[in-house]
Amino acid sequence: MEQDVLMQNNLLAERNRGYFEARGILALNFLSSPGSGKTSLLEKMIPLLREVRPVSVIEGDQQTMQDAERIDALGVPVVQVNTGTGCHLDAAMINRAVREMDVASGSLLCIENVGNLVCPALFDLGEALKVVIISTTEGDDKPLKYPTMFHEADVCILNKIDLLPYVPFDAAACREHAMRVNHHLEWFELSAATGEGVEEWMEWLKRRLEQV
Amino acid sequence: MEQDVLMQNNLLAERNRGYFEARGILALNFLSSPGSGKTSLLEKMIPLLREVRPVSVIEGDQQTMQDAERIDALGVPVVQVNTGTGCHLDAAMINRAVREMDVASGSLLCIENVGNLVCPALFDLGEALKVVIISTTEGDDKPLKYPTMFHEADVCILNKIDLLPYVPFDAAACREHAMRVNHHLEWFELSAATGEGVEEWMEWLKRRLEQV
Repeated sequence: MEQDVLMQNNLLAERNRGYFEARGILALNFLSSPGSGKTSLLEKMIPLLREVRPVSVIEGDQQTMQDAERIDALGVPVVQVNTGTGCHLDAAMINRAVREMDVASGSLLCIENVGNLVCPALFDLGEALKVVIISTTEGDDKPLKYPTMFHEADVCILNKIDLLPYVPFDAAACREHAMRVNHHLEWFELSAATGEGVEEWMEWLKRRLEQV
Repeated sequence: MEQDVLMQNNLLAERNRGYFEARGILALNFLSSPGSGKTSLLEKMIPLLREVRPVSVIEGDQQTMQDAERIDALGVPVVQVNTGTGCHLDAAMINRAVREMDVASGSLLCIENVGNLVCPALFDLGEALKVVIISTTEGDDKPLKYPTMFHEADVCILNKIDLLPYVPFDAAACREHAMRVNHHLEWFELSAATGEGVEEWMEWLKRRLEQV
């Protein structure tokens, strides 16, 4: 039963993947717990990225338009998807949103998933890269406790490093835990609030964009 | 399909509820995002509560025994349930764990759910009270973005108030958002790290225990 749902999603995800490839769109799927800083990071990234590529955003939340409004204020195309009781975005939602926005060829598409470190890991959206964000206030044991997400991710961003002096969090241990689950992970440490470390992540992403 | 799963769970949850009632067990279901401080709060609560009642704990996580080991160090009975890719505890898991532990009559049973602000809201475990924890590092908009959890909860605990000076978080606004979703919520503000505010929550819970 669960398998049927996942298989149906996988088919639509591959359709999305073909669509993105045909248009030269790089799609990133941002994943984290609620409040780890997905939207704040996008707010820091977009002004730096729109100089090199058009940027579009799909926002996922159970309720409210708040994140879409924050992105809209930056002047880039955005669609909010509200999932109601649903715990993740699925490939069909992305398919609809991409058509609705008519995402420009050669653009970067940022998909902010529902805040949930568990379920969204199982649902391929057709994205090129899964970017998991964990923050320094969540405890450095989280990659071991929620391994599926870290196993599926391509990039792991440790956010809120400005709070390190105030919380019992060992960044090196967290990285080691994440790498134990998935040694292919690209690892970045930054603060979306202060901007520290954002440049390194942007340099990496711009190089990745050049390959599309 | 989803309805069948939920209905099957509801039946077993009622069985659990009958079992708890027959033994005078007060069962609390602790719910939050990963890293909001569920285990840390239990570590603060248990030494204060075991003076008045036997305490047992069921720990839920996708992987690892880490939380069970932290609770075991306090010397109370604990069972760890690992859900693998599963995103929530269900009533059948609780049923098995309660029999395995042979939870004492008249005791307080603390169930720490998988860290997830979304899915566990839909799965009744037979508990008397759902306690949702949100921390000051997660953003004060979360009750509006993830309303199902706050709608289902009986108690909301704002944790990590010791970090308020370092984060952009409006506790009064968060409470207002939570109350807008569910005006029956009991509201507490505390720090599991420093112990500030824990006493008020404990006084309330002890009064609730006297009614069982």
